[in-house]
Amino acid sequence: MKSHLPKLLVVSLLLIFFINCKKSQNTESETQNSTPKLRGETSEPTEKHFAIVIHGGAGTIKKANMTSEQETAYHEKLQEALNIGYAVLEKGGTSLEAVQKAINVMEDSPLFNAGKGAVFNSAGKNELDASIMDGKTLNSGAVAGVSHIKNPINAARIVMDSTRHVLLSGKGAENFAKQYGVILVEDDYFHTERRYNQLLKAQKKDKVSLDHSAFNTHELIDDHKYGTVGAVALDKNGNIAAATSTGGITNKKYGRIGDSPLIGAGTYANNNTCGVSCTGTGEYFIRTLAAHEASNLMQYKNLSLQESFENVIGQIDDLGGDGGMVGLDKNANIAWYFNTEGMYRGYKKSNGENVIQFYKK
Amino acid sequence: MKSHLPKLLVVSLLLIFFINCKKSQNTESETQNSTPKLRGETSEPTEKHFAIVIHGGAGTIKKANMTSEQETAYHEKLQEALNIGYAVLEKGGTSLEAVQKAINVMEDSPLFNAGKGAVFNSAGKNELDASIMDGKTLNSGAVAGVSHIKNPINAARIVMDSTRHVLLSGKGAENFAKQYGVILVEDDYFHTERRYNQLLKAQKKDKVSLDHSAFNTHELIDDHKYGTVGAVALDKNGNIAAATSTGGITNKKYGRIGDSPLIGAGTYANNNTCGVSCTGTGEYFIRTLAAHEASNLMQYKNLSLQESFENVIGQIDDLGGDGGMVGLDKNANIAWYFNTEGMYRGYKKSNGENVIQFYKK
Repeated sequence: MKSHLPKLLVVSLLLIFFINCKKSQNTESETQNSTPKLRGETSEPTEKHFAIVIHGGAGTIKKANMTSEQETAYHEKLQEALNIGYAVLEKGGTSLEAVQKAINVMEDSPLFNAGKGAVFNSAGKNELDASIMDGKTLNSGAVAGVSHIKNPINAARIVMDSTRHVLLSGKGAENFAKQYGVILVEDDYFHTERRYNQLLKAQKKDKVSLDHSAFNTHELIDDHKYGTVGAVALDKNGNIAAATSTGGITNKKYGRIGDSPLIGAGTYANNNTCGVSCTGTGEYFIRTLAAHEASNLMQYKNLSLQESFENVIGQIDDLGGDGGMVGLDKNANIAWYFNTEGMYRGYKKSNGENVIQFYKK
Repeated sequence: MKSHLPKLLVVSLLLIFFINCKKSQNTESETQNSTPKLRGETSEPTEKHFAIVIHGGAGTIKKANMTSEQETAYHEKLQEALNIGYAVLEKGGTSLEAVQKAINVMEDSPLFNAGKGAVFNSAGKNELDASIMDGKTLNSGAVAGVSHIKNPINAARIVMDSTRHVLLSGKGAENFAKQYGVILVEDDYFHTERRYNQLLKAQKKDKVSLDHSAFNTHELIDDHKYGTVGAVALDKNGNIAAATSTGGITNKKYGRIGDSPLIGAGTYANNNTCGVSCTGTGEYFIRTLAAHEASNLMQYKNLSLQESFENVIGQIDDLGGDGGMVGLDKNANIAWYFNTEGMYRGYKKSNGENVIQFYKK
């Protein structure tokens, strides 16, 4: 036996050398390739899949609190938004147009906290935010704190297409969008009884609380259903787009801007990875750069989209925040995840799948 | 020989098994540990290093264009900012206080496009932005479009410390900050001849250009020196903070918000990785989430801070943008990188290093 030890040693050393060579080759190719293959990716997809996924906000959405009429109303409106977005994609339209049109449907409905159904700020006015991103070019557009634009996502699109800027705010954003013919509305367009009562309730709470405490406690933030709307689509050309639109938070003061108009926080799209739209307590999505973080976890850690979402919502949960996110990757894989009671959500894919859900399973 | 092959095989298989076990253990610990070891990190630093790094903007800063008086003025002011921030750290103060005080020095100087030296918007007013982030908690605060706050970074700090929000904007942000006793100034505080002449020059160009074209061309964006200021510090407790303050762009319209008040774009800090402050054509820093991207490249791709910066500025360069970034990692390694002619920058470390530079080498 003793005489064979050198041979064993040589064979072992060769083996170790071989394994290490393989390892360092892998590391090198990973570093040099800025768009690494994503898990499950095939180099030549046999068929051009397309898909759209949307959300209508996350929050305390429980079966026990919903009438069947409410369920039907939300279901029908989400299906309408999906159908309109899907039709754009089916005809060969762009993912940008698909997400914009799907969001327009939800903005025009009083069911969601965006456009028509926007909540009131502390002055009894409405301040709306929206953003859109093109995953092909990383071009982005957004508006924050606009008060007279019927469909803020359309203004965000104009900012993206017609300026070198990404984010315009307040009166300036309105003046800019006017020049491009967006539909303007009077203050009373956004007046819905439901939202006004939410304001009165919030202000009543505010009155009996300490100075600024209403601004600091969970109460006012938790009082609404986070009815932000969002859409993400993949078109036949393999381009991903994402968009988000919101009416902010009830009784908000001081020109607060949440995550919805912020690229990388509430909205992100990148053809190399995925598209994402978020909803929830916006500040936690800003601090974690939730949408961008999900994309980076795919690109740099090789996680699947679903794994990325679970990781990011985990980070938000650790910080004490809540909400959810929906998205899709370049292979039309759909993902969503949330740590709230529910999230209005749905998707429609070119393989015939059509799903709408409200609650946790 | 033949009779020994089974033995060789067993030994080889055991070796492969052993190596694979080690490998999967490493993978597992990397996945479970949300703060992976960074390159060059030692598990027990022998000494508590601390450091501060600052910038005063990037742009067409060339030796040929600078008088020796100008060089001296910038050098002295950057050294003053470094000294004040460093003194905070030396006494055991927080990195948050250090970056805030260093930025106050630059905000109070007319040399930089922040605070006192802020540029004029198209209406002949000043709209200032600032943000700050705590790498220990990921808490963040920011203000956008404030016009009467002497030191916007102080307002950003108050938003971080005293609200559950991250970003407040416009008049609302001012009204909020007033309640916390920030120093308010009249419009004329920000009136400097140099900035006013820049506005007149920009408006003259605007007049002869097509509608909106001034808003779309490089001209007005490139006309200023990107004099945004920023600071990043690591304190004796190992906490990293980053902050950025700016006067925006000359002749800006429509309530444009750049990257400086946006967490993850112009400013980011995370004790697990690094702190970053950016300056340049803000829109490209938003689209690439420049500051957050640099942190993620360290965390998920194991790049050094310097490699991360070069990667991110490369991404910005590819999109057609320019600017620079400064930062430091948890081991007090300093990094900066820019694709412009120059960047006002400097750092001071507890190991005695003290560097100030303006130009490309």
